[in-house]
Formats: sequence, C-alpha cells, structure tokens
Amino acid sequence: MIPVDVHSPASSPTVVHVPLGERAYDILIGRGALAASTERIAALGARSAMIVSDGHVLPRHGEALEAVLAQAGLRVATITVPPGEGSKNYAELERVSNALLDAKIERRDLVVALGGGVVGDLAGFAAAILRRGVRFVQVPTSLLAQVDSSVGGKTGINAPAGKNLIGAFHQPALVVADTALLDTLPERELRAGYAEIVKYGLIDDRAFFEWCEANAARVFAGGPERDHAVAVSCRAKAAVVVEDEREEGRRQLLNLGHTFAHALERIVAYDGARLVHGEAVAIGLVLAYRFSAQLGLCPGQDAERVRRHVAGLGLPSSLAEVPGGFGSPEAILDAMAQDKKVKAGRLTFILARGIGESFVQDDVAADDVLAFLRQAAAEAVPA
Amino acid sequence: MIPVDVHSPASSPTVVHVPLGERAYDILIGRGALAASTERIAALGARSAMIVSDGHVLPRHGEALEAVLAQAGLRVATITVPPGEGSKNYAELERVSNALLDAKIERRDLVVALGGGVVGDLAGFAAAILRRGVRFVQVPTSLLAQVDSSVGGKTGINAPAGKNLIGAFHQPALVVADTALLDTLPERELRAGYAEIVKYGLIDDRAFFEWCEANAARVFAGGPERDHAVAVSCRAKAAVVVEDEREEGRRQLLNLGHTFAHALERIVAYDGARLVHGEAVAIGLVLAYRFSAQLGLCPGQDAERVRRHVAGLGLPSSLAEVPGGFGSPEAILDAMAQDKKVKAGRLTFILARGIGESFVQDDVAADDVLAFLRQAAAEAVPA
Repeated sequence: MIPVDVHSPASSPTVVHVPLGERAYDILIGRGALAASTERIAALGARSAMIVSDGHVLPRHGEALEAVLAQAGLRVATITVPPGEGSKNYAELERVSNALLDAKIERRDLVVALGGGVVGDLAGFAAAILRRGVRFVQVPTSLLAQVDSSVGGKTGINAPAGKNLIGAFHQPALVVADTALLDTLPERELRAGYAEIVKYGLIDDRAFFEWCEANAARVFAGGPERDHAVAVSCRAKAAVVVEDEREEGRRQLLNLGHTFAHALERIVAYDGARLVHGEAVAIGLVLAYRFSAQLGLCPGQDAERVRRHVAGLGLPSSLAEVPGGFGSPEAILDAMAQDKKVKAGRLTFILARGIGESFVQDDVAADDVLAFLRQAAAEAVPA
Repeated sequence: MIPVDVHSPASSPTVVHVPLGERAYDILIGRGALAASTERIAALGARSAMIVSDGHVLPRHGEALEAVLAQAGLRVATITVPPGEGSKNYAELERVSNALLDAKIERRDLVVALGGGVVGDLAGFAAAILRRGVRFVQVPTSLLAQVDSSVGGKTGINAPAGKNLIGAFHQPALVVADTALLDTLPERELRAGYAEIVKYGLIDDRAFFEWCEANAARVFAGGPERDHAVAVSCRAKAAVVVEDEREEGRRQLLNLGHTFAHALERIVAYDGARLVHGEAVAIGLVLAYRFSAQLGLCPGQDAERVRRHVAGLGLPSSLAEVPGGFGSPEAILDAMAQDKKVKAGRLTFILARGIGESFVQDDVAADDVLAFLRQAAAEAVPA
C-alpha cells in the first residue's frame, strides 16, 4: 500500500467530453486534476492498473499517480521505457505487452500512460493490441501531449520508413491533463508544446489566435491562462475527432504545418537535440502560411503575422533555423513523399485562406512545393 | 505481367454476406472461387496488393493468385513467412510490416493472406496496424482457415503467456474460400479442420450435426458436400460475429471445446507434431459434452454420440490420445487459468444442454473442473 500524499486540487477540473458513442470519454483539465481524478478512475470499475512511464517522468509524478490509483481501489504495477522517441519501436512494444500480460492485465483493466507523447503513443498502442483491446488512461505530462497526442485515439510506433506508420486508433477511457505537472518542464519543451496550441487558432479559430498573441506569456507562466489554453485546444481537437475519428476527411486539418514538420524531423533524423516535434511544427506552421500566400490563397500579412508570433516566442520559424542545416529543397520534398498522408502519389497539404481559415488540399503539384521550398531555402542562406 | 493461367470455375461461388455495417464483406465459397474472384477484387478499387504467404503454400497456389490480382489491375508484391505457428511473433510481424511499407502499400491497398490460420492471423494483424489499418483479403488454403480463422476479423500473434494474446479485430474486405485448394492438403490437416465444422452443429444446429454424421466422408472426398459444409460453417460463424463482433457475449459460443483445447495445446507446447489445433478442438468438444453430462446439464447419450462421431473420423477424442501425454489434471487446470477468457479469476466454459444447445457459463468452479479432469484422466491410464 502506497502512502497517500497527493496535493488537493486548487479548484474542480474543467471537463471536456468527447462524444464518440460507445468510445466516449472525458478529459479532466486543470491544476490538481490528477488528485481530483480518484472517483472518476474508480468509476471505471477496473481491478488492476499498470502504469507505463519513463525514467524521467516516473520519479517526478509516479508516487502521486500510484496514490490516486490505490485510492481508487486498484492493484498497481509499473513499467518504464527509456525516455525519447527511440522507444517507439517493436522491441519496446513487445517488452511492454509482455509486462502487461505478466501483470495479468485483462480487458476491463487499465493501462495508464504517464508521460509525454512517446509514452502515450506506445502505451496506448500496447493497450490497443493486448487481448485485442484493453482500456487505457492518459496522464500526459508534457504540454504537447496535453493538447495533442493524448486526445484523439491515435497510438503507434515508428518504422524505418517513417514515424507513426504502425499503430491503431484506440480511444482512451479517460484523460487527466493536470497542468501543474508542467511546472517542472524545461522551457524549451513548454515552448515546443505551445506550437500545437497556436495551431488550433490557425486551423479555424481566429479569435483564439488573437487570444494567444495577447496571452502566450501567461500560458508559459502557468496561470489560469494555461488551463484555458489547454482546455480550448482539447475542445478543438475533440470536435474534429468526433467528426472524423479515423482521419478520412476533416481530421486532416490537424496536420496543419505537419507535412513540412515531418519532413524536417526526418531530415534531422528525429534528433531531438536539433529539433523536437513542436519546434518542427512551429516552422511548419509558418511555412504552410507562407506557401499559402505564395499560391495566392492567403494575404501575405497573415503569413507574416503568424511568423511574427511564432518567432516572438523564441520558436524557430524558418528553414535557416534548423540546427545543423535542412539539407536541400529536394531533400525536403523527398522526405515529404514518404509521409503517410501521400495518397495515390499526390501530395496533400493543409493550406489557409487566412488566419483561422485552413482547408485540405489533396492535389498539390510537387513542382509548386519545390518552387516554394527553393525560395524559402534561398532566404536561409546568409547573404 | 504474369501469364494468365487460372482454372475456370466449375460453377458460380456461393456468396455469404457478413453484414457488419461499414465493415461488411462477402465470403466467396466453392470450387474455382479464386479464379471467379477477379471482378470482386477489381471492384475494391485498390492500386496495389501484397501477398503474404508461406513457403509451403506459395509454390502451390501463388501463381493462380498473382494471375487473379494482375487481371484485377493490381500491382503485386509478395512476401513469405516460415510455415507454422512459430511465425506468429513480433519479429515476423515487424518484418512483414516493413515489407508492406517498402512496397508502398497505402490505406486503400490490399494485404492478401494466402495460407492457413497462421498466415491469415499474422497478415491480418499486419494489415490492421499498418498506417492504423489497411484493407486485407483472406484466401484461406486450409479447411480450418476456410471455416474458422478467415471469418470474423480476429487477427494476432502469440506471446510467451499464451496464443493470440496480442492482436486486433480487423475485418477483411473479402474472403475467397476456394475449396479446390484443399485437394492437396494432407489427410491429417483436413480431419483437424473438420473438427471446427462439426462444432457449428454442436453449438446451435442439431440438424447440421446429423448432416455431418451422414456426410463427413463426402466432405473429405471433396464433393459438393465439402462446399456445403464450408458454406454452412461460414454462415454460422458470420451470424454469431454480426451479433457480437468484439466477443463480449454470444460470440464466446464459438469457443465451444476451446478452453480444453487451448490448455492441451499449451501442455504440448504448441507442438503440431503432437497435436494440431483442430485435433485439440476435437478432444475439447468431446470433453465439453462429457463435462456438461457430468454436471447433469446434458444427457449422457448426447456426449457419447459426440465422442462416437469424432472418434469415428479418426480424430482424437480423449486425454489418453494426447501424444506424449497430457501432464496431469492440475496441469490442465493451470493451463486453463492462463487462457485469456478468464474474467476476474473465474473460469468461463461453453457447456451444452444437448447437441445443438450450447451456452456460455462464466462462473464455473475450479473444483468441478478439477474433479471432471481427474475422472477423465483416470480413464486415460491403461488398466
């Protein structure tokens, strides 16, 4: 029995409901949401839980989570994976799934992901395929995971051919986004996660983008603005996921900036020391707007406004800022062609007619992309 | 381009429709069904297909399948896995999924499983998790796969803790059960597959059981009775799957005989030289009826009639016939306790009130099981 030592919540968490029929679930958001989640977890009616975490996160937040699970009446076991994207592979998946079997986790039991996107994707995928599907709970500990990867049911691992190419749609039974867990995050990681927040404004909510311009500093500082930004993001993502759970249409909007971002991540060989996902997304958002402007779809001042906000936060906003270099325009295009969003050989981009007015364009000519990349690359060379 | 050299069908295949909403699909059954499937496959609208097969099956049937796929306008690639249950592991899954990525199989393309249950389970699982789900087509080449594993969407691999513990529900887009492909099967494999056919009569169709008693020899010989038996089996399985796709209730009836069978397979360490799955099911069906009789649920003469039919076909029907021995009653109970159908520590059995009258009993006392096994084991010791 673990001693109970959880912080009392500052206030009741915000609840975002994701109405997916028999796969519906709630997201609890706010400072102290973890300690406030005991009853919710108990109500799931499981007997056992296995925490999947990593060696960085578990020492910080493991005890608090174990206490909540024990208070909810669950038998608790724990496994950790090495921190970092490298753990999203078959070997770790096999190790985690065997540990879940050894812990006798059954269909109604819980796999609890405590960590960032890597842990959530890997643990969620292990839950999806264990006994053809056991329930899982996300306790995201990075800003990126709180506003993006822990909502929507995408789980998976990487392949030599690309990121997230192996996986499953598996919705969580509950998400607990305790914004106080972000207080100990390194500044760089917070900033990177913020890129996904501003994305929701750019997709279809101009007012939220303007709110971001005014309040970004307070989101970083951890005031109620942080809770608000997380809640708006989760609500926005949930709305899209409910419309298109399996990404056959509208859900693709969530990939705004990501075709560029994935290509850049591939080019730096997923080396987080050079570029973490959120930083690649920051550059990708700016490029998506600039590309839209170049195609005559979007006013140039909107693209410039996006660049200014991103750059003003200390996030990279151009190809020139890829540490170690971005290769060549051709290398970026090649990397794009390997992305899983390629359909029948054509390139799909999320483009925009303005801030908050994004749309899916599934037939973009490779020549147009290359011409834009060449221009963006030329600017990157110091005069 | 592969030369077209497919046999013309003897007659139009029987079509069994599996009405699972947006996951609905057809099963084409009969002699020549493969050659007759070109239009159906073309109608799926894929661009590419990758055949997953094994080194035994591909030389026999690979060319015919390639010809059909090419005629349907598809680009075709092929990968083989080593024959046998040992291929249902993470290493082969990784190898197959990487090959699918290298062949640029996209979401609307086809993974085509050509083989028995092992190939179908592995290829189907690879299809389920590739890009979070690409379509797949089953071309089962064993009787067992035609009447059981290729219908219903269960896919997966084995774990050290047990068979099929890792997997996904992933319905095929089409199943082509060409009964002529069974002509070259070894006698033992045909017999083993037959156990799953007779199971459908025992579950809820007494008239079909009586038909089996009268027609088993003709099913083996390959006449129209074989097509009929496969069609009745697929229809029966489809009806159950439609009612309960994710095995939360009625679908468990398909496990008649399987709690015993899985335990025996575990005890022989899944050594097919000793006991293949269908043989274990044959023993399991007889034991399920005898256990039901011992519990006073089922007339003893029904249990004896089941035993007589199974034994009369040359299938094993008692613990004494497990080659190399069955261990002990306690070992069998232990092996059962590891089965994935254990819920909250209780044993679930499919029992029967008579031939064609099976039901799910999810609260069977371990003591009753042990007492029955001891009796069945005592008989097994030569006097």
